[in-house]
Amino acid sequence: MPAAGQSLEPIAKKDLSNAKSPIWHTGTVLLTSIGLGFVFNRSSDPLLSCVGFSVLAYVLTNALIPTLGPSFIKVGFYGRDLGKNNKPLIPETMGAVCGLVYMSLMFLFIPFLFYKYLVTETSGAGNRDQTIDTAVHMIHTGRQLSMFPHSKLAEYLAALLSLFSILVLGVADDLFDIRWRNKLFMPVLAVIPLMVVYYVDFGVTDVVVPQFVWSLLHSGTEYSPPPTVNLGIYYYAYMLAVAIFCPNSINILAGINGLEVGQAVVVSVFLLLNDAIYILRGRISGSVHPAAEAHLLSTYFVLPLLGVSIALLKYNWYPARVFVGDTYCYFAGMVFAEVGILGHFAKTLLVFLIPQVINFIYSAPQLFKLIECPRHRLPKLNVETGLLESSRVEFKIAPTGLRKNFLSVLAKIKLVDLETDRAGKIKSCSNLTIINLVLTWTGPLREDKLAIVLLAIQAASCGAGLIARHTIAPIIFGRDNI
Amino acid sequence: MPAAGQSLEPIAKKDLSNAKSPIWHTGTVLLTSIGLGFVFNRSSDPLLSCVGFSVLAYVLTNALIPTLGPSFIKVGFYGRDLGKNNKPLIPETMGAVCGLVYMSLMFLFIPFLFYKYLVTETSGAGNRDQTIDTAVHMIHTGRQLSMFPHSKLAEYLAALLSLFSILVLGVADDLFDIRWRNKLFMPVLAVIPLMVVYYVDFGVTDVVVPQFVWSLLHSGTEYSPPPTVNLGIYYYAYMLAVAIFCPNSINILAGINGLEVGQAVVVSVFLLLNDAIYILRGRISGSVHPAAEAHLLSTYFVLPLLGVSIALLKYNWYPARVFVGDTYCYFAGMVFAEVGILGHFAKTLLVFLIPQVINFIYSAPQLFKLIECPRHRLPKLNVETGLLESSRVEFKIAPTGLRKNFLSVLAKIKLVDLETDRAGKIKSCSNLTIINLVLTWTGPLREDKLAIVLLAIQAASCGAGLIARHTIAPIIFGRDNI
Repeated sequence: MPAAGQSLEPIAKKDLSNAKSPIWHTGTVLLTSIGLGFVFNRSSDPLLSCVGFSVLAYVLTNALIPTLGPSFIKVGFYGRDLGKNNKPLIPETMGAVCGLVYMSLMFLFIPFLFYKYLVTETSGAGNRDQTIDTAVHMIHTGRQLSMFPHSKLAEYLAALLSLFSILVLGVADDLFDIRWRNKLFMPVLAVIPLMVVYYVDFGVTDVVVPQFVWSLLHSGTEYSPPPTVNLGIYYYAYMLAVAIFCPNSINILAGINGLEVGQAVVVSVFLLLNDAIYILRGRISGSVHPAAEAHLLSTYFVLPLLGVSIALLKYNWYPARVFVGDTYCYFAGMVFAEVGILGHFAKTLLVFLIPQVINFIYSAPQLFKLIECPRHRLPKLNVETGLLESSRVEFKIAPTGLRKNFLSVLAKIKLVDLETDRAGKIKSCSNLTIINLVLTWTGPLREDKLAIVLLAIQAASCGAGLIARHTIAPIIFGRDNI
Repeated sequence: MPAAGQSLEPIAKKDLSNAKSPIWHTGTVLLTSIGLGFVFNRSSDPLLSCVGFSVLAYVLTNALIPTLGPSFIKVGFYGRDLGKNNKPLIPETMGAVCGLVYMSLMFLFIPFLFYKYLVTETSGAGNRDQTIDTAVHMIHTGRQLSMFPHSKLAEYLAALLSLFSILVLGVADDLFDIRWRNKLFMPVLAVIPLMVVYYVDFGVTDVVVPQFVWSLLHSGTEYSPPPTVNLGIYYYAYMLAVAIFCPNSINILAGINGLEVGQAVVVSVFLLLNDAIYILRGRISGSVHPAAEAHLLSTYFVLPLLGVSIALLKYNWYPARVFVGDTYCYFAGMVFAEVGILGHFAKTLLVFLIPQVINFIYSAPQLFKLIECPRHRLPKLNVETGLLESSRVEFKIAPTGLRKNFLSVLAKIKLVDLETDRAGKIKSCSNLTIINLVLTWTGPLREDKLAIVLLAIQAASCGAGLIARHTIAPIIFGRDNI
C-alpha cells in the first residue's frame, strides 16, 4: 500500500503485457497446440496429460497476468517497489491468478487422471442389458465402479481442498494484513482434510531412522533392517509442522524481485528430478512400485505449479512488473508440503528446503523478539549507486549480557555485521536474514544479481541434497526406499 | 461502491455489534456449550454432531460479522443502501464470512462423520503385534481401512471443493464486478469435481417420469413400474443446468434487505423437513435405506448453512447493517444444487425453488434484452413516504408489434403495470421481477413488509411443494422413492 500523499497512477495494460508481435502470437498458438496435444495424448497416459496441462498452465498464466493486472490495482491489490529509485506502483497478489489457473486445470485433470478406470469399468459392463429391476436398484443405491481407486480420488480431492483453503487464506492475508502470529497457524486449518485422508488411507506413522539411532533406542535387541521407529500420534504433529513450516518459510525468504517465485521454481525442478528417478526406475523395470506411485502423484502436483510459476517469474523478475503476494508463497509452500506428506518423503522435502530452514533458524532471534526487529528487514536501496545494501537494526538500548555475547560470536564467524562505538557498545547490526547476510559477504549488489546469488545457493543446496539422498542416505538408513 | 464525491464514513464496530450486555454474553456461552455438547455427543452420532456444529456456525458467524465489518469496509467491500433516505454506507460481501465459517466447520466435521469407521477399524487390528516385515510393507504401500467408505469421503470432499470454488468465484465477482454473461457460467467450473464423483460413484442417469410420459415413450410395451427413462449424457447436462440455475436464481431474486438470506433460510428449512421425513422413517423402521443415506448427507450440508444464514439474516434484516454480496447467493445456491445432485432429488429441489423459477422466466424478456433492461431493477424509494414503489423502465422507443402485444397481454392478466399515452403508445412499464410485481399488486410497502410478503410467498410455495411431493407425486410417478 502506498504511503499517504503518494499519488496512485495505475499502470496501463500495455505496461504489463509483452510486445504483441506476430512472433509472440505464433508462440502462444504453438504452445497451446503442444499443450492440448499432450493433454489428449493417444496413449491416455496421465503423465503426458499432466505435461500438457502444465504447458497450458504456463500459457494461461502468461496471458492472464497482464490482462488482470490493472483490475487488481483498481480494487486495491497494489504495492510500491521499494527497491527502485522511483518506487513504482505495481499490482500485488498475482499469486491469486496462479492459484486459480492451477486449481482450474487440476479440476479438469481429474477425468484424465482416472481415465483408465472410467473406460474399462464402463465399456464392458454397460447399462444396456440390465433388467428394469437392477435399474431400479441402481437408482436407489447407485452403482459403484468396483475397481475404481476411490481412495486415490479422495486423496487427490483432499489435496486440492487443502490448496484451495490456503489460497483463500492467502488472499485474505493480502487483503486484510492478518497479524503475524495468527497467520503462522493458517496452514493448520488448511491441512485438516489432508490429515484425515492420510489417517484413513495410509496411517503409516513409522519413520526410517539412521541405524545408529535405532541401535540407541533398541540397545540389546537384535538388529533387523530397516530401522524404523513408530512415531504414532507424533507423526501427525510432525506432518502438521511440515505443513506449517513450508508455506511460512518461503514467505519469510522474500522481499526482492524474483526471489519468492525463483526459489519455488528451483525447488520444483529438484522435486521433479527426484520424482523422475523413481518413476523412470519403475518404467524401465516394468513394475509399478508404490513409491513410484507416490512420486507420480507428486509430479501431477508439482509440474503444473512449475508451469504457473515460470509465467509468474517472467513478470516478477527484475525489474518486477507485478508482485506475487503472500498468496503465492503460501500456495507454493503448501503444494510442497502436500506432496511431501502424501508421498511420505517429508524428510527429502526438507533437504530441498535447507536454505529456508537456515533462514528460519537464523531469523529466529528477531522473529521471537530476542533481538529488536524492525517492521521491514528488506535490503536497503542506495539511491546513489542503485545497488542494494544490507539493512540494519539500530539499537535504541545497546544489547548487554547474553545477547551481546551472542551477537559478538556471530560477528566473529562472519554471520552478522556489527557496528560498535569506541566503548565497545553495540550500536547496530545487520538484520538476521540470509538475504542481508549474503549482502554483508558480497558487498552491495544490484537486485537481480542478488536474486541470482540467492537462487544459485538454493540450486547448489538442492543439488547436493539430491545427490546425498540417493548416495549417502541409503548407507546411513541401511536401505533405500525403492 | 459509492458514487464519486460521496464521502466515505466507515462505521465503527459498535454500530454493527449487539449491545454487549451480560445477558448477551451468557447467551453466547450457553449456545457454545450446547453446540460443543452436541458435537461431542456420547453416542457419536454424526447427526447430533452436525446439530452441534450448526449451533457453533451460528455463534461464530454472529460474532465474526461485527468484528470483521470495519475491516471489510477498509479494503473496499462496502456499498450504499439505496433503499434508505440517507443511503448509509455498510459492509458488503459478508457472505464470505459465512462461507469461511461454514467451510472451516465442515473440515472439522470430517472425523466426526467417519468416526464409526475410524474407531472400529483401528481398535481391533492395531499395529502392536505386527512383525517388522508387515511394518516395512506398510511403509511402502500404506494400509487401507478396508471397511472405510472411501467413496463417501470422496463425495464429501468433492462437494466441499465445489463449494470452495464457488466461494472464491463469488468473492472475485464482488471484487471485480465480473460481466453478467461470464458469471452466469462460473458454477460450471465449480461443479466439475462433483460431476466426476457422481459419474464414478453413482452413474445413475435414469429419472423417474410420470406414468403417462412413460406410456407415450414406450407405446405398445407392457407397463412395468417404476417408469424410468435413461437420460444418459443428457443427465449430466441436466445436473449442470441445476448447478448453474440454483446459484444464479437466488442472485437474481435480490436487492432488498433480508431477501437473499431470507429465501435461503426458508428453502433450507423445507429441505431439512423433507430430509427429516426420510431419515425419521428409516430410524423408526430401523432399516438404513440408501435414500435415507442421501438425505442424511443433505442434512449435513444444509443444517450448518442454516446456522450461518440465521446469523447473517440478523444483520441483513431491515434496516440492514451489512450486505450479503453475490458471494452469499452463489454459495447458498451451490449448497442447494449439490445436495440435489448428490441426493438424486434435483426435481424435488426445483419444487422448492418455484418462486425463483417463476422470477427467472418472468425476468427473461429483460435478461435477454427483448425488452429494455435498466442497470438496476430494484424497487424505488419514495423519499416522502419512506415506502418502496415498483421501479419502471421508461421506453425511449415505444414497443411495437409482437413486443407491444406481449406487454398488453401481460397487463391484461395483471402481470405488469403499463403506462400508455392517449394514442395507445406504451410509455413505460414496471420492471419484470416478482419483487416489482408484488409492489404493483399491493401498492407501496416499507422494505421489511415487502421482504415478509416475498418470504411468505416462498414459504407457502415450499409448503405446497412439500405436501405435493409426498402426496400427489407418488400417484403421478407410480411409486415413491422410499
